[in-house]
Amino acid sequence: MDKILAYLKKNEKRFIRELCDYVRFPSISAQPQHRGDVRACADWLVKHCRQIGIKTTLHPTAGHPIVLARTFDRRTPGRPHFLLYGHYDVQPVDPLNLWKHPPFEPRITNGVLYGRGASDNKGQHFAHLKAVEAYLKTGTALPCDLTLLIEGEEETGGVSLPGFLREHRSDLRCDAVVISDNGIPDLKHPGLTYALRGIAALEVRVEGPARDLHSGLFGGSVDNPALVLCQLLASLRDGHGHLTIPGLYDEVQPLSRFERQAMARVPFSERHYRRLLGVPRLFGEKGFTPNEQRTARPTLEINGLTSGYQGEGSKTIVPAWASAKLTLRLVPNQKPRRVLELVRRHLRKICPPTVRLIVKLGHCGDPYWVSPQGPMARAAMKALQEAFGCEPVLLREGGSIPIVNDFKTILGAETLLLGLSLPDDNPHSPNEKFDLACFRHGMRLGVGLWSRLSANPR
Amino acid sequence: MDKILAYLKKNEKRFIRELCDYVRFPSISAQPQHRGDVRACADWLVKHCRQIGIKTTLHPTAGHPIVLARTFDRRTPGRPHFLLYGHYDVQPVDPLNLWKHPPFEPRITNGVLYGRGASDNKGQHFAHLKAVEAYLKTGTALPCDLTLLIEGEEETGGVSLPGFLREHRSDLRCDAVVISDNGIPDLKHPGLTYALRGIAALEVRVEGPARDLHSGLFGGSVDNPALVLCQLLASLRDGHGHLTIPGLYDEVQPLSRFERQAMARVPFSERHYRRLLGVPRLFGEKGFTPNEQRTARPTLEINGLTSGYQGEGSKTIVPAWASAKLTLRLVPNQKPRRVLELVRRHLRKICPPTVRLIVKLGHCGDPYWVSPQGPMARAAMKALQEAFGCEPVLLREGGSIPIVNDFKTILGAETLLLGLSLPDDNPHSPNEKFDLACFRHGMRLGVGLWSRLSANPR
Repeated sequence: MDKILAYLKKNEKRFIRELCDYVRFPSISAQPQHRGDVRACADWLVKHCRQIGIKTTLHPTAGHPIVLARTFDRRTPGRPHFLLYGHYDVQPVDPLNLWKHPPFEPRITNGVLYGRGASDNKGQHFAHLKAVEAYLKTGTALPCDLTLLIEGEEETGGVSLPGFLREHRSDLRCDAVVISDNGIPDLKHPGLTYALRGIAALEVRVEGPARDLHSGLFGGSVDNPALVLCQLLASLRDGHGHLTIPGLYDEVQPLSRFERQAMARVPFSERHYRRLLGVPRLFGEKGFTPNEQRTARPTLEINGLTSGYQGEGSKTIVPAWASAKLTLRLVPNQKPRRVLELVRRHLRKICPPTVRLIVKLGHCGDPYWVSPQGPMARAAMKALQEAFGCEPVLLREGGSIPIVNDFKTILGAETLLLGLSLPDDNPHSPNEKFDLACFRHGMRLGVGLWSRLSANPR
Repeated sequence: MDKILAYLKKNEKRFIRELCDYVRFPSISAQPQHRGDVRACADWLVKHCRQIGIKTTLHPTAGHPIVLARTFDRRTPGRPHFLLYGHYDVQPVDPLNLWKHPPFEPRITNGVLYGRGASDNKGQHFAHLKAVEAYLKTGTALPCDLTLLIEGEEETGGVSLPGFLREHRSDLRCDAVVISDNGIPDLKHPGLTYALRGIAALEVRVEGPARDLHSGLFGGSVDNPALVLCQLLASLRDGHGHLTIPGLYDEVQPLSRFERQAMARVPFSERHYRRLLGVPRLFGEKGFTPNEQRTARPTLEINGLTSGYQGEGSKTIVPAWASAKLTLRLVPNQKPRRVLELVRRHLRKICPPTVRLIVKLGHCGDPYWVSPQGPMARAAMKALQEAFGCEPVLLREGGSIPIVNDFKTILGAETLLLGLSLPDDNPHSPNEKFDLACFRHGMRLGVGLWSRLSANPR
């Protein structure tokens, strides 16, 4: 182990140069003009993995190719197999004028690497890759078989991945998936993210008159679809932040005392948080902390409202229709389709007969939960503790990471989310950065993790 | 009087030809490319009035000129003076493809004249003009002094008119203003419109986080401005159509028994009305008929809603802000500014501290009411009865006609609204039309009205 750590230390400068080379590719998957750059980035990655000594193949998809790198020729029966997931594609860069340096000319200032993709996700999975290199180049046997799956469509929805997983199901079957593509509160609080919220989207449309009506001539004798929409939506949440849709909480897995205690250890400053978001006051479901509210409780958000006249000045109409885009964030063990049905049924029940109600159900994503007290989680926590040299925390995230559910349903594997990003890394924003301390800790994590996990396979 | 009526009959075909000539001008005041056409139309009208024998002058404004035609050289002290208002400008014609005939090539089918401006307002005031011609050409003395004021900016807000009225205040001071620029239920129910609703506009903006937030990462711990906006607006009206803003009804002049009886005489078919508007069911303040609801009761309408993402698909955000455009329709004796203040105060009171509330007060217009039992109204009703040969009705209109308040405040004159348009005349829409029966009745009205009014000056 010392040999490996010494190798990492000795080669750190080269690793950082290589990471800069990697970040230099404008591998923006969303923009057709960068299609060639995305491909060049994938080719560079394949070449790089092969140089390290990993068997690497490039798999074309309908979109951008998937890089598959294996530390083994054939699976050894009985030997643990883990899958490390990452993505080499990056977000677009606009607004470009807000960048202090060009996004694809990586530069290091005060131990921080600036560049698009530095943190999301090149730097994070590259740290793991360098750990593997250290194993291989020092002739140290890995404690497990390892497959690295680095895709190029994560920022555009990862549409090709589920099909790829299904196609290579038997090859990719593994004991667990590891992903470093999320965040931790700070370097003193590394963490395992053991739960994610799910999502359910819908659109509510209220139709009244056949066309916009003159509000003077007709207003007062017909209902106003925008007002009805407001009344419907307003009634979905009470004054204490509790959702009022019958049955909505029926399947919610309550937070255990262990979980609440673990979450209380996550550093949180209400003042800092309020300032970060720019809100006059926090608001959430009574009886829960802000961290619990935003990660462990179901919520309903209006994402958009549309009705009538939205230009300058005024237009005196009773609008013909009004619509709202809504998403619910769901927690284990809520079933998104079932929840959408509850919302639709409730809206139909409370909608007055003076308008027509149209509820269009949208996309869904399951919530995710892996036991924070299970052997895998405990092994990962131990590896975090060793790599960062401090006590890690158990984290929940309020967002969704759909691939996690794909890994579970297609490969039957749980995912360990071991983020290496800091809260101010600006992913998806100008001046994205990656702290080289995170890179270093990530490499150390990549060294110790596999032994810890291999000692505790599922 | 028989001589005058005989003149009208004898010359009817020519009058219709002349009206067609008048309609042929594309005098669209809103479109700069028609500026020359608007001017040509005004010039034609001036020439036409002079041919009839009326002293006519063209008054330039910052926009389109005002035509002022007088049946007298100097006012005779003690002799009644009435002002007839109309406008020679017309609405734009798009969508042009929905017109069955070109809008400025008037044509007559089954006794109906089709063309833009036929009903709104050329045909209506031209009928009055022809009545004046009949007086003058038959050498019959008019019972009063008469000033015709025909403007060219009505369809663009009539911005020059108040200044013109102020400038010519002493010349234009009169016993009453007559306007035929609105509607009647049908030819068997001509009517005097004795009340109009006022208007008060405002914009409500609710601001939450400093920028759109990721609904997964933050949703649940901050309030949703769109939901707060919905809750604010939803609470402004109860389930019975009654507005819940404290003090809102304080100044409402209640409908008298006479008025309610008069309104009940106005033909109304709920089934037909519902179909016309295309609503599944009518809705309005409990205890009032639809006609009362839409003309004699205050209402609050959401004219537009804007928040967050409105494109295809979904965007999982807590929007930074949400806004709504609102208008209230007010009835005598509500004061628009005072009502806006009540709404603002109420919104401020009920808005939670989790968001910032911005209420922007907009334009206002006073409601209008002239006693339906006063001498002027009774004289006008008598004239209607004689011209149409049936019992007229007393009408209220739910919309606003701002000039009516200008005439009142600047000239101190009440206005008699004696519409000649039918409900299906399509003003502002494709295939505008004017029934030649309305034209004939309008000319007869123009013959008898002035004697009736002169016998009952204010």
